[in-house]
Amino acid sequence: MTTQRRTPDAGRRSEATRRAILDAALELVGEVGYARLSIEGIAARAGAGKQTIYRWWPSKGAVLFDALLALSEGRDEELADLPDTGDLEADLKTVLRATVDELNDPRLSEPMRALTVEILLDPKLAADFAERLDGPLRELKLRRLRRAREAGQLAPDVDLDIALDLIWGPLQRRWLHREGPLTAEFADAVVETALNGLRPRT
Amino acid sequence: MTTQRRTPDAGRRSEATRRAILDAALELVGEVGYARLSIEGIAARAGAGKQTIYRWWPSKGAVLFDALLALSEGRDEELADLPDTGDLEADLKTVLRATVDELNDPRLSEPMRALTVEILLDPKLAADFAERLDGPLRELKLRRLRRAREAGQLAPDVDLDIALDLIWGPLQRRWLHREGPLTAEFADAVVETALNGLRPRT
Repeated sequence: MTTQRRTPDAGRRSEATRRAILDAALELVGEVGYARLSIEGIAARAGAGKQTIYRWWPSKGAVLFDALLALSEGRDEELADLPDTGDLEADLKTVLRATVDELNDPRLSEPMRALTVEILLDPKLAADFAERLDGPLRELKLRRLRRAREAGQLAPDVDLDIALDLIWGPLQRRWLHREGPLTAEFADAVVETALNGLRPRT
Repeated sequence: MTTQRRTPDAGRRSEATRRAILDAALELVGEVGYARLSIEGIAARAGAGKQTIYRWWPSKGAVLFDALLALSEGRDEELADLPDTGDLEADLKTVLRATVDELNDPRLSEPMRALTVEILLDPKLAADFAERLDGPLRELKLRRLRRAREAGQLAPDVDLDIALDLIWGPLQRRWLHREGPLTAEFADAVVETALNGLRPRT
């Protein structure tokens, strides 16, 4: 084997190793949970050296975070605008039903739960997450709600941050706390209840 | 010193030790966070033996859970019925403002955050928590909402579990994720938005 430092082959090999590590982290956290996830385990599963991982990431939380980011980068539609057919209720149901499908997929759900817990414990990871993933997603949601407000489909004085919590919060809570089944019917009911409010409409 | 086994004095001493351990756990978790909380540290702060703690509790999470339970037992009003003046909006604002005050108190807030994170990771602790604390509190909230629905202040077809999430979820989320300041104004705005819904009222 010839030396491959700084050649295109080496770059491809390095990228292949990086992807193998990220895939291994996602697989393992789904199998053993975050508490028992280890750099050693990830290295073994990826066929990579422990030192390689430590050279690129400071902690298992950081590996997992990049793995999730890579996953959502692979799903371009997620970081694109939310659907806008002009019918806010229908569009929100489409979005929440897609989220229900994602959260029912353990390959995505378990790493996300693990990362969420780490974020609650680690303000530095939380800031990184807010900047790189949660912030941009939140901005896309706010943009859709702002357009609906301009179109007269939301009350003119509605606080969009609270609106966002009313629409997305119950699903996130039910998922995070494992409080009940995640179904399309639940997604639809949340959207309708948030839009209409709890009081009788006269 | 005479032997005090099974005498009233011993009972009092044992209860005093128990309280000292629970107080120490609450103090320490507020100071060092859950990750660095240890049975050794609690024992040292409480002036108790490590073995005494292990005899009564299986883990630091279990100590903290009992400490929080003791705290809320000391506050009898919390497990009593929610206020019912006949004005649902005013009553909910009263309750959420009281929660805002509690969550702004680090003596209560830090142990609660630590316990919440443990609950997300530990299904056994979650079941215990649901049975002993969260379930009864949730039932009190549902009872107040059911009375409001019977009085015609909530829509007749409203799903009370979703209603509960819309009312209490945004405050809990903002607190848990440290997403913004917890104020009386925020509590009021959440109650009004959940009751009125996001659409314009005509």
